[in-house]
Amino acid sequence: MELYYTDKKNILSNYLLITGSEAHHISKVMRHKPDDIIYVTDGQDNEYQTIIKKIEKNTIKAEIFNRTRKARETTAKVTLAQSVVKGNHMDDIIEKATELGVFEIQPIITDRTIASLSDKKAQRYEKLMLSAMKSSTRTHLPCLSKLINYQQLLETTDNYDLALLAYEEEATSNRLNNFVPQDLVSKVLLIIGPEGGFNNEEVQQAKKYGVKCFSIGPRRLRSETAAITALSLLLYELKEM
Amino acid sequence: MELYYTDKKNILSNYLLITGSEAHHISKVMRHKPDDIIYVTDGQDNEYQTIIKKIEKNTIKAEIFNRTRKARETTAKVTLAQSVVKGNHMDDIIEKATELGVFEIQPIITDRTIASLSDKKAQRYEKLMLSAMKSSTRTHLPCLSKLINYQQLLETTDNYDLALLAYEEEATSNRLNNFVPQDLVSKVLLIIGPEGGFNNEEVQQAKKYGVKCFSIGPRRLRSETAAITALSLLLYELKEM
Repeated sequence: MELYYTDKKNILSNYLLITGSEAHHISKVMRHKPDDIIYVTDGQDNEYQTIIKKIEKNTIKAEIFNRTRKARETTAKVTLAQSVVKGNHMDDIIEKATELGVFEIQPIITDRTIASLSDKKAQRYEKLMLSAMKSSTRTHLPCLSKLINYQQLLETTDNYDLALLAYEEEATSNRLNNFVPQDLVSKVLLIIGPEGGFNNEEVQQAKKYGVKCFSIGPRRLRSETAAITALSLLLYELKEM
Repeated sequence: MELYYTDKKNILSNYLLITGSEAHHISKVMRHKPDDIIYVTDGQDNEYQTIIKKIEKNTIKAEIFNRTRKARETTAKVTLAQSVVKGNHMDDIIEKATELGVFEIQPIITDRTIASLSDKKAQRYEKLMLSAMKSSTRTHLPCLSKLINYQQLLETTDNYDLALLAYEEEATSNRLNNFVPQDLVSKVLLIIGPEGGFNNEEVQQAKKYGVKCFSIGPRRLRSETAAITALSLLLYELKEM
């Protein structure tokens, strides 16, 4: 199954339009023709099953004959609060977290964060998210939130049913399953530190805000590995995978 | 904690030698001096707590005052049978699987595998494994086995207590916890497909060999994401993280 994207504003009552590079991809790379059936998402939880009616230079017009809400999407909404990391490690996290099913990515600055987040980088991350949404056949485009600092993040923890922090110094007996309840939780926050980890004060501070610290084993993981692993385990414990 | 590497042949009765770029790193980058305590592994499950006695141009001599076996290592031995994938995706898998605690990486060729594995690439992967072993403070250097094809792999499944295959078309109710027994398993095989996935015949063939196929959720994961996620979930189910 291939899934294509179009902006919500291009969805009309019983047909939709696809423009720009996505239209080019459908007609020139995938060589779709009128009467072909294609799947399209608006990244806002809607999936449209459509039949191509007209292919023009940069626009495809397709008739909608079926709509689905939240196909292949998670029930719980997981926000990944990720300390900004360097180079292509952040790309990896953005891309893989999107594939796995993250609802929102909240970049944060912690004491040991040394990387930065320019507008240009944020734009690249948004492109990566769009591409990962399509490749994973997701119908929700995760939101990339504005950079905040660690203290600001902790002040938002009340908005979540469950707030978790993967801490490398945590006792290995404090496994994730100790903290994820069996009943439904709808909003979950997962906090991941930078290359150098959290300092002890940050961990104590998190605990004051009710954040649960868990171990991801005795081996030291790089920040991007910790993010992908912790998110995988969390979605698994939530029965979302 | 920093962990350094030296070849087993450099371990003598009560002292060890560190040579080459690792010696340079210790003395010039980390600026260690005689009388400093450093941790060294031979990548064969041994960890040595040592005190530096002499620093010469390209050799460090250190006295061993404590030895530990299998520090931070897994009890179960997990072999990742990974279809060779393209570009830096294979680098990512090699690196992160090593950090997570894999025992052996077995590159395989399946029907839809399009990437190849040259001697030069294998040498790069071995360097990545060494570096990831140190960064994760592991004391076991995973083995990178010779490339084999899918049929040859299936013929080895008898050597394992449990053989698993992450299959994207599998019913999502067939979660990993259905297949990992609560009692101790000592050798586990985890098979991951290429970018295009396994074909149906390969999956049927695996089942004939007793391989258990499990789902990693309804969202389609890239091969490298599937590898890291499935390995994380497996080590988690085995209580190794």
